[in-house]
Amino acid sequence: MAKLRVHNFTITLDGYAAGPNQRLDVPFGDGMDELHGWMTAAMEKDATGVDAERLNRWSENVGATIMGRNMFGPQRGPWEDESWTGWWGPNPPYHHATFVHTHHLRPDLPMEGGTTFYFTDAPIEEVLDRAFQAADGQDVVIGGGAATVQQYLRAGLIDELNLVIAPVLAGAGIRLFDNLDGALTQYRVSEQTSSAAATHVQLVRR
Amino acid sequence: MAKLRVHNFTITLDGYAAGPNQRLDVPFGDGMDELHGWMTAAMEKDATGVDAERLNRWSENVGATIMGRNMFGPQRGPWEDESWTGWWGPNPPYHHATFVHTHHLRPDLPMEGGTTFYFTDAPIEEVLDRAFQAADGQDVVIGGGAATVQQYLRAGLIDELNLVIAPVLAGAGIRLFDNLDGALTQYRVSEQTSSAAATHVQLVRR
Repeated sequence: MAKLRVHNFTITLDGYAAGPNQRLDVPFGDGMDELHGWMTAAMEKDATGVDAERLNRWSENVGATIMGRNMFGPQRGPWEDESWTGWWGPNPPYHHATFVHTHHLRPDLPMEGGTTFYFTDAPIEEVLDRAFQAADGQDVVIGGGAATVQQYLRAGLIDELNLVIAPVLAGAGIRLFDNLDGALTQYRVSEQTSSAAATHVQLVRR
Repeated sequence: MAKLRVHNFTITLDGYAAGPNQRLDVPFGDGMDELHGWMTAAMEKDATGVDAERLNRWSENVGATIMGRNMFGPQRGPWEDESWTGWWGPNPPYHHATFVHTHHLRPDLPMEGGTTFYFTDAPIEEVLDRAFQAADGQDVVIGGGAATVQQYLRAGLIDELNLVIAPVLAGAGIRLFDNLDGALTQYRVSEQTSSAAATHVQLVRR
């Protein structure tokens, strides 16, 4: 049975997925420079250890990705132009169908390397169906951000939530564990492990 | 220079220090049965490892304790009687002067083993002065609960905050990292380590 997973979703010690004032040159907001420090180190060639092992799980057996518009870009409201093609350059690291939740639709956007961005304002259940079809038996991953993860968590649709707690304090911003209407009580912690740089936690359904 | 420390203050993965409905038979509220599971194991005779090592730091070089009334007991409002002498039986584990913040004063309460509870409605700065005097050169520890830790954090008075993140999800209750008015930005994470049962994090001032 194909799963809906989240990987390496990184929050601060005080629970924030993003700081205040997210913008083009500071996509995770103020005070978050070190949030993904563990990931930068784990992405180095020949990196080993807990962080690298957890990072590599992200791409295992994944056939489609879902993200919120805030993860696709810093723009809010109607597109002023459609020249923005994501944060990732001409060859995004997805290499498969990638669905972007947005109220402001755009034409399908095929990129180098197999990624195609599909912009959709459909309900999450319908988008998830399309993603599972595109994944063709493989799993689907939600890339982020916090609001998108919360939406799927509230609906009980996430099978496996792999979180990372970074040794960073934000003090303000967007919390992952907000707006969940008690949905978290359906989940339990199935794994918890640390490197010197981060703590990795896996949530699964009870 | 004597310090103000907090030790083994345990929160859930979603940031809660207590669940909903705290009461006499469920002092940490609903859904929190496993919150201190790491501590129970670490308190066993001959326990070793990260959890035991961190637990033992609590009592090192401590000459006085401060706590909020909610940590002293489940009662709220005026004392109906004064027969309640804390959760800990006749010989509490403090063995030194222990100051209880409360709007509802009571006579000093000397216990077996050297603990005396002093009930005070003085401002935190004044209570801290008294505690440092009582500690006579040793450090002072804040026992809890969350509201008391928050109050001292907001005032920038805590030198060292040793937190534990337990692999538990509460979904609701009292969050440690609330009501801090940005005070957390004065702190940084100086240590982060995990056992199989818990993640230990130390915050110190920047």
